[in-house]
Amino acid sequence: MQDFSFSVPTKAFFGKGVAEKAGELARQFGTKALLVYGKSSVKKIGLYDTVVKSLKDNGVEYVELTDIQPNPRITKVDEGVALCRKENVQVIIPLGGGSCIDTAKAIGSCVHYDGPAWDVVLDSSLAKDNLPVIAIPTLAATGSDMDSDAMICNEATNDKMSLNIPAQFPAYALLDPSYTCSVSRRQTAAGTADIMSHIMEVYFSKTPGAFLPDRLMEAMLKTCVKYGTIACEDPNNYEARANLLWTASWGCNGFVDCGKIGRRWSVHPIEHQLGAYYDETHGIGIALITIQWMRYILNDDTKDMFATFGQNVLGLSAEGDTMITAKKAIDTLEELFQSWGIPKNLRESGINITDKSKFDIMAEKALGPAGRINGFVPLDKQDVINIYDAAF
Amino acid sequence: MQDFSFSVPTKAFFGKGVAEKAGELARQFGTKALLVYGKSSVKKIGLYDTVVKSLKDNGVEYVELTDIQPNPRITKVDEGVALCRKENVQVIIPLGGGSCIDTAKAIGSCVHYDGPAWDVVLDSSLAKDNLPVIAIPTLAATGSDMDSDAMICNEATNDKMSLNIPAQFPAYALLDPSYTCSVSRRQTAAGTADIMSHIMEVYFSKTPGAFLPDRLMEAMLKTCVKYGTIACEDPNNYEARANLLWTASWGCNGFVDCGKIGRRWSVHPIEHQLGAYYDETHGIGIALITIQWMRYILNDDTKDMFATFGQNVLGLSAEGDTMITAKKAIDTLEELFQSWGIPKNLRESGINITDKSKFDIMAEKALGPAGRINGFVPLDKQDVINIYDAAF
Repeated sequence: MQDFSFSVPTKAFFGKGVAEKAGELARQFGTKALLVYGKSSVKKIGLYDTVVKSLKDNGVEYVELTDIQPNPRITKVDEGVALCRKENVQVIIPLGGGSCIDTAKAIGSCVHYDGPAWDVVLDSSLAKDNLPVIAIPTLAATGSDMDSDAMICNEATNDKMSLNIPAQFPAYALLDPSYTCSVSRRQTAAGTADIMSHIMEVYFSKTPGAFLPDRLMEAMLKTCVKYGTIACEDPNNYEARANLLWTASWGCNGFVDCGKIGRRWSVHPIEHQLGAYYDETHGIGIALITIQWMRYILNDDTKDMFATFGQNVLGLSAEGDTMITAKKAIDTLEELFQSWGIPKNLRESGINITDKSKFDIMAEKALGPAGRINGFVPLDKQDVINIYDAAF
Repeated sequence: MQDFSFSVPTKAFFGKGVAEKAGELARQFGTKALLVYGKSSVKKIGLYDTVVKSLKDNGVEYVELTDIQPNPRITKVDEGVALCRKENVQVIIPLGGGSCIDTAKAIGSCVHYDGPAWDVVLDSSLAKDNLPVIAIPTLAATGSDMDSDAMICNEATNDKMSLNIPAQFPAYALLDPSYTCSVSRRQTAAGTADIMSHIMEVYFSKTPGAFLPDRLMEAMLKTCVKYGTIACEDPNNYEARANLLWTASWGCNGFVDCGKIGRRWSVHPIEHQLGAYYDETHGIGIALITIQWMRYILNDDTKDMFATFGQNVLGLSAEGDTMITAKKAIDTLEELFQSWGIPKNLRESGINITDKSKFDIMAEKALGPAGRINGFVPLDKQDVINIYDAAF
């Protein structure tokens, strides 16, 4: 077990109808809220009306920031910041997926900084006096409702970067699984793959003696395997949606990292460039990159972890040769993803790369300032290009 | 999955040397601390000196409340409250097991109530403006370092009761597994049985669809089975102590309850009377009552859960007949406890009951005001007496 520190100050309310608490909770912070959401889907499922009624009932006025897109834009953050200042907003309430919640968190961090929001993304020490966030997710995926991270894209520079500070933990997470039932099969598959990846990025590491976190992660991954399949086939299955939603929150809030070697993610930095350059759906890119990353780094040194994953999560029986079990684990995971409807590769996913030369700059950005991904297996630029190629 | 709310505001620092942070953290709350501990063991292991040095280095003065005993006394809480008022204490730092931490939490709740502390135990709404607590456990057992509960005994009335309010969550938990290495084999066994019981009290319930919490609990229980044995045989095994300590914190802070039917413990209320009437070591009583409780309630309705426990936690293979697997699970758990050195029954544990008539009043107190234990299987007074008899 590695040393660590851990806290999640977010208070979660979970179950049918918890969005009705929004007004009462918002009232603790003031009388003016900013609602952040994407398109009309939050109105179709009734969430918008529920929240607006609850705000009115509790004497909280609101303004709105809408049209939040996947891979959330820094321009929207700037727009939200301006709105918060103009309207003297005291609490931010995102309704939606990770993009809405991340946008809300970033706005909360930038409201009291007198300059472009991207400055704060580049230097989080500029954030101060964060506005509180009450997160209401409508998709089980990012777990952004209970973590301190916000991923933000800069359209001008094709950068997708993380702003991660403790002050960004939402004050409250209102988790109603029934609002996730209308999520399409494609987004359900993508979201579940994303949950799994957050866990696998930590699970696949060499940390001696981290028995408890490994077993906890297997518990979460088994939940994804079981209920990802059920939710894809039977979207209104509350049990499946509930188990996935709670797994999403705890797979990504730092809990599974406790005792493991610190955050050394590999797949996410590689995938984020697909979001930044091609606007690929994050979870789809994650699923495709995960499989090719596993194949690429499979060797005598890594095979044990993949074989253990195969046995403890996917229920494979141990083969005499660990390498065979490990390969079977990767194949089985790929088949699972495809059974959910995830495309076979990036081309099938609709990315038409006429000029593959983008892989070069993407790989460079994936490596970041360190010039290297120090994950389960260290990766250099050519490794990352090879993984893009394999996923294409 | 049942509806729930959940938050654990405690910030945990985990690893070798984290007790050195005590002074810096205490300084956030003021310049006068109350140290709460039992006997000289915290001095022998060096913890006392580490904390005192850290306090001095950070300009924090301290007073002491010592001789805290297992099954902590309300008289000690009153004494601590008086000391806090007299010395204008601003933060309480328990060093020790659950008794010390529970005493500290209860003092923190009672300092601003002008009357006997037992009043607050009986009516928690009397607690106000809690003093912050920085918990430094030296035993993996109660998980009191990250929960909101304090068990307090009233010697005058033989009552052992729970004071449970959100304000009692410690502000910080400083978790250094190396301080738990000097725990005796007997206390290691008792502590690990207690951790397991906190989890099993929740695990054994009929909650449809609580897949994730059930798998998470199995992960924790497997950790106890593996490392309880190792820590009993090899007390200085850091890996074992680390895994047990973190499991203790998360097995009892409400996390495993999320999605399961609310807290309906059976074994703890029955055992608490052994503490109140015979001062039995809590974890020893827990182990003995757990086994007899499982045997007593085993029937066609409960056998599935016990069989699942046997397979998923103890690694038993499924027998054709579920009842046989369930019985084997109970026998295997009993053998495990005995392999750790836990006595076979209460007599062997040193309780000389010349007058068994105490079982009557004990059973009544175990049932509490409801007159019934509404656990996995509802129990009435005669049921509880029968379980005492079986454990004797």
